Amino acid sequence: MDKIGITELVVDPFHTDFAGKLNYETLGKHLLNSAEHHASRRGFGMKALNDSNYTWVLSRLTIEMNEMPKTYDKFEVKTWIENVYRLFTNRNYCISCPDTGKVYGYARSIWAMINLADRLPVDLHQMHGENMDQWALPEELCPIEKQGRVKPLSDDKLVRTIQTQYSDIDYNGHLNSIKYIEHVCNLFSVDFYKEHRLKRIEMAYIAECYFGDELSFYINDKENGVYEVEVRRISSEKDETAEVVTRCLLKFE
Amino acid sequence: MDKIGITELVVDPFHTDFAGKLNYETLGKHLLNSAEHHASRRGFGMKALNDSNYTWVLSRLTIEMNEMPKTYDKFEVKTWIENVYRLFTNRNYCISCPDTGKVYGYARSIWAMINLADRLPVDLHQMHGENMDQWALPEELCPIEKQGRVKPLSDDKLVRTIQTQYSDIDYNGHLNSIKYIEHVCNLFSVDFYKEHRLKRIEMAYIAECYFGDELSFYINDKENGVYEVEVRRISSEKDETAEVVTRCLLKFE
Repeated sequence: MDKIGITELVVDPFHTDFAGKLNYETLGKHLLNSAEHHASRRGFGMKALNDSNYTWVLSRLTIEMNEMPKTYDKFEVKTWIENVYRLFTNRNYCISCPDTGKVYGYARSIWAMINLADRLPVDLHQMHGENMDQWALPEELCPIEKQGRVKPLSDDKLVRTIQTQYSDIDYNGHLNSIKYIEHVCNLFSVDFYKEHRLKRIEMAYIAECYFGDELSFYINDKENGVYEVEVRRISSEKDETAEVVTRCLLKFE
Repeated sequence: MDKIGITELVVDPFHTDFAGKLNYETLGKHLLNSAEHHASRRGFGMKALNDSNYTWVLSRLTIEMNEMPKTYDKFEVKTWIENVYRLFTNRNYCISCPDTGKVYGYARSIWAMINLADRLPVDLHQMHGENMDQWALPEELCPIEKQGRVKPLSDDKLVRTIQTQYSDIDYNGHLNSIKYIEHVCNLFSVDFYKEHRLKRIEMAYIAECYFGDELSFYINDKENGVYEVEVRRISSEKDETAEVVTRCLLKFE
């Protein structure tokens, strides 16, 4: 089996934004699904893991697109493992046109494996080392910057508070990683998107959220189209503290 | 070409709800996408229509599922035109397992075609009569009840108000039909879904909504798991009137 997994896709008319372009949340789902199909065919997918009481947890996701495919455009997601470390693994993606080879963009992700009983990370080399290592392809090109260090906001402004809903929750019982992307993209108006293209989005997933959690979105406008967003969960206790659950960086052009 | 269009699908792990079952909004998107692929291959899809300044508008959608496919289950959507009338056409769907033939459920939809310039419905027989009529298959079985008459709520209770966001808007510039399903399903909690299965959902789309509209969701508990939901847009004028934009019926068991 090849080290690179390929999923062929088409931009369905009901998976686009107002401009008829593939939206980031649909693309994000395609990336995670292609990762899962790649992993499960090689023996370390979610299903097999869950049966033995482990699961993959997405820790970082960066997507950078030069162009978004439009309605009816064919595209393919290539995915491969860059490296396997003790407590995490890097997985990269290339989104391109299967006919012309044109590259739409790339993505990078970092995953940890946890034990479902104590939710602590496990040693990947001990668990899957030989099997996972044989698939690593560090020499494959993924020419987008690695995700930067996650820093707390230096300045912030509360822009929205939401309560998580049924459709936010995935089969792990947690807020779906991709739903954060949708909520963060929703902090900007259609008029804003008419004037600006979202080129890069970096997601750092810090804590898990559950149904009914109240999440506040804080934004820091770094100028030149760069926005930092922090998602904070309002503590159920009355001590006014709020825990940071996700940090994001958005670059518009 | 066959009168029935078939789209083969698999339940991707990131397209399920908390219980690992395909959710209604993803299924809804698959139904509309399969309809669009069926139509475009036969000469009356959105793209060709939009180029000549017309578009399809979804007026009614009913989905009734005996069972929802689960993560990794293969399923297929069969779709066909039941009848073509002057101002609307019925399109039906069967959702089944391609390997065993097991039927998961059925769906019915009613579509009108409008002129993009004046947004008025056009005469389908005049526009497409012979071409569309040749694909009609009224004898194909769709053994779920037709959608009932849309009645105003006899009793109501305001349960939520939302403002429409970037991700709600589709390429027509309107609130995506399927996003209504997501918002309506979100009126119930994860705990409620643990005890009840959504068997049937009926959507009647009455008026188009836009980015930034404020929508209020009113519910009427008819008992025995039946809920009527009315989505009303708060008027921008200060006359306290609210326009009904969508009516829904949900049947849980």
